[in-house]
Amino acid sequence: VSLDAVKPQEEGDILERCRGFMSDPVSDIKELQGRKDEMRTRMEMLIMQTQAEFCKALEEVDGGTFKVDRWARKEGGGGVSCVMQDGKVFEKAGVNVSVVFGNLTEEAAKQMRSRGKVLKGKDGKLPFCAMGVSSVIHPKNPHIPTVHFNYRYFEIEEEDGSKLWWFGGGTDLTPVYVNEEDAFHFHNTLKEACDKHHSQYYKDFKKWCDKYFYIRHRGETRGIGGIFFDDLDSPNQEEAFNFVKSCTRTVVPCYLPIVYKHLNDSFTDEEKNWQQIRRGRYVEFNLVYDRGVKFGLATPGSRIESILMSLPLTGRWEYMHEPTKGSREAEMLKVLRDPKEWV
Amino acid sequence: VSLDAVKPQEEGDILERCRGFMSDPVSDIKELQGRKDEMRTRMEMLIMQTQAEFCKALEEVDGGTFKVDRWARKEGGGGVSCVMQDGKVFEKAGVNVSVVFGNLTEEAAKQMRSRGKVLKGKDGKLPFCAMGVSSVIHPKNPHIPTVHFNYRYFEIEEEDGSKLWWFGGGTDLTPVYVNEEDAFHFHNTLKEACDKHHSQYYKDFKKWCDKYFYIRHRGETRGIGGIFFDDLDSPNQEEAFNFVKSCTRTVVPCYLPIVYKHLNDSFTDEEKNWQQIRRGRYVEFNLVYDRGVKFGLATPGSRIESILMSLPLTGRWEYMHEPTKGSREAEMLKVLRDPKEWV
Repeated sequence: VSLDAVKPQEEGDILERCRGFMSDPVSDIKELQGRKDEMRTRMEMLIMQTQAEFCKALEEVDGGTFKVDRWARKEGGGGVSCVMQDGKVFEKAGVNVSVVFGNLTEEAAKQMRSRGKVLKGKDGKLPFCAMGVSSVIHPKNPHIPTVHFNYRYFEIEEEDGSKLWWFGGGTDLTPVYVNEEDAFHFHNTLKEACDKHHSQYYKDFKKWCDKYFYIRHRGETRGIGGIFFDDLDSPNQEEAFNFVKSCTRTVVPCYLPIVYKHLNDSFTDEEKNWQQIRRGRYVEFNLVYDRGVKFGLATPGSRIESILMSLPLTGRWEYMHEPTKGSREAEMLKVLRDPKEWV
Repeated sequence: VSLDAVKPQEEGDILERCRGFMSDPVSDIKELQGRKDEMRTRMEMLIMQTQAEFCKALEEVDGGTFKVDRWARKEGGGGVSCVMQDGKVFEKAGVNVSVVFGNLTEEAAKQMRSRGKVLKGKDGKLPFCAMGVSSVIHPKNPHIPTVHFNYRYFEIEEEDGSKLWWFGGGTDLTPVYVNEEDAFHFHNTLKEACDKHHSQYYKDFKKWCDKYFYIRHRGETRGIGGIFFDDLDSPNQEEAFNFVKSCTRTVVPCYLPIVYKHLNDSFTDEEKNWQQIRRGRYVEFNLVYDRGVKFGLATPGSRIESILMSLPLTGRWEYMHEPTKGSREAEMLKVLRDPKEWV
């Protein structure tokens, strides 16, 4: 089923598909054409396409234009960062693609996987390739939630030449106020995509998401979750890729209907203030716990501005802020302190 | 010399001194009276007094009042948090005292010292006592710098009953714009206090401060420094305490003259914006690198609101922000990228 659904995406010549991207892909187009059936080519094409589709959908609703930065990494690879700041609808919207390669130490390779498998490299070095698309969208209106997604692929070559590979990713929503209808739409869209591939995926990856996006020192989740998975290397590479492809295709239908629905919602100063406090918590999660950010900040040669693109334009920290009992702010906190099933 | 200078502070009866504090001290007053010559009593009195002197000086210039929270820690000890938020002069001013005790694991004890000494506990447990005063003041006016100080004392009891103790602390300034005169005043006041105790202290602790308050992923220091030291256990307990006492007495004279000087400086929206960006960097340092914050967030039973009190009320993250060449913002960045000698 899933193969049929996604086939058209991969049809057509590479050059032609590249014309629709926000910029040239990270790898040379000739090189991509020369290895067009390899997974790293198919994945790079997919993440570039996901970036373009999402950016264009956001530009359409906002009326603004993304600033596109194509950058190179001295140690190998590079990326394409698209940012729209202070738009009509979006306070800060970032959609980043990166494709990096080089050599990992055995220690670093171990840390890249969430379940640490011991890897054996040639003279302790492991050639690797890591690529992904990631995005965080912070709207101005407190009734439009923040969304985040990230889909990634890793390849590591061991001493004996065998290749270890896996996919990871997820999409999650961070509203400022609880809206049951939005939450259902978001989770249900993800569940439908998951169900096409494995009956356990949504259940397992929803739980993983709530666990991952947890601000331990606050005892609350960052948002109302979605799905999150890592180390996916089953049942086989083709099917794992197809699942990731299905996920990337949900990004626009998960989020854009919610944006349009609340586009003209009016809001008060108090609601804006609560949004700013939640943005502060978003910063806390990203700087203190997020594995991607921590890995990025500690990696020499990483592009800091692309990593910290996920931070909101503004955030707020009030001492001892506690919402009034029975308020909509208290309702939001209750959900963050005790994650719900939405579907 | 220093003994003479500070003696009057310790004169007078404990009960009488407590009357001037922001609240009752953390330890029971009767208990303090019963062990009045012990270092942990003298230090608790000193940090409570430092808190009161600093808070009162800030209240005088602002016209506002500190909110005082006295809190207990289930595992032993507690603290007194004083916060003034959205005052006339100060956006957020926090002055916190904490006095905690209990048992440390050998692993945790090792982490508390910046040079990790292996400690031997009874059945792996080490009774400890940790206390300190710490403060971060974020003013509204971008021409008034942010100040931070922290003075602390640790005691750990080893298996054989011997007590290991040390002091740590420092005071540092984070301006939004370079002001040579302010920088000189701040550093010189600290240098004069240091010079009374050891001719190397200022030089060594100034360097340590620049090294500690370094935002590695940005390649810039948090501010223009001051002094920072840890593990101070020489030449003897009395003299180390006297040095810390001299440091705590510089807090008001280091900072308040700078506040009064710029109290009525006018500022533009652009200057306010640059302040907000610098506040964002302050958040990055505190959440990603600060040892105290990391230790606090990872410690069960710690009071999160007192730890994160150091965060500004508001912060800002603009993608790829780079000041115009030759601007006062660029001048500030230059100093943060290449720390200067101010005295």
